[in-house]
Amino acid sequence: MKRLIAGAAAVVALAAGVALAQDAPFGMEIKARQGLMAYRAVNIGVLAGMAKGEMEYDAAKAKAAADALVYSGKVDQSMLWPPGSGNSGNPASTAAESIWADGSNIGELSGNYAAAADAMAAAAGTDLASLQGAMEALGGSCGACHKAHRVPAN
Amino acid sequence: MKRLIAGAAAVVALAAGVALAQDAPFGMEIKARQGLMAYRAVNIGVLAGMAKGEMEYDAAKAKAAADALVYSGKVDQSMLWPPGSGNSGNPASTAAESIWADGSNIGELSGNYAAAADAMAAAAGTDLASLQGAMEALGGSCGACHKAHRVPAN
Repeated sequence: MKRLIAGAAAVVALAAGVALAQDAPFGMEIKARQGLMAYRAVNIGVLAGMAKGEMEYDAAKAKAAADALVYSGKVDQSMLWPPGSGNSGNPASTAAESIWADGSNIGELSGNYAAAADAMAAAAGTDLASLQGAMEALGGSCGACHKAHRVPAN
Repeated sequence: MKRLIAGAAAVVALAAGVALAQDAPFGMEIKARQGLMAYRAVNIGVLAGMAKGEMEYDAAKAKAAADALVYSGKVDQSMLWPPGSGNSGNPASTAAESIWADGSNIGELSGNYAAAADAMAAAAGTDLASLQGAMEALGGSCGACHKAHRVPAN
């Protein structure tokens, strides 16, 4: 039991180390959310670079980036969005209160992202033209949610 | 083609928005890495809270948190750890150069985490004693990697 408590205490200390590095409240949840967005940005950056011809098309790399976008959409975020964890609760977050409002379309927009990522995953490894063909819907799905639910609006 | 370019440009702008918010170089990769760690911390916090009796044991919630730990271990991080993106390349990162050194045990330690998360996922939903039994190995797998490869060492 002593070992158990020591183990659990160590885990809490590890978790606290992350939390203390952030602004409270909900600093850890916000950091996780923003990290997932950065993860998507890294991978979308690869696809956009190829689409624009700034990076040589590489089918395997494109497919891996698209798969990462699909996978990141399936991460369970249920504990990352507690009410009050938006911009008005902590300015470190750019999440608008509209996300939590009655009748919010956040679920629909999230579904649109998932569908666009799936389409990109089906296209990205085929050839450059296919990747380019899937880019607009993907970028549009990102932008639609940012426009509707990000503070400041952009 | 005009629509394609507009779409790709919008995606790049979205990605750049994330990048600009971070310290260069590799700010976006570092933010994504740290976000994944925060994601794990949020979920481990739930399990540790139950293990210590600070939070009521809830089998479904415990299983979901453990599954999230497993899932996060399968996220493709291949683009997140470019050489030079550690603490010596950008102080925003606490990743030690030892991660990239010849003969680094980072792969082994990462595998240990995955195994401990799998064991927790098998135990967490059974009962509190099972959850507690899996906690030490899980916390130990986190701590071992932090101790070996995090700056400052702790």
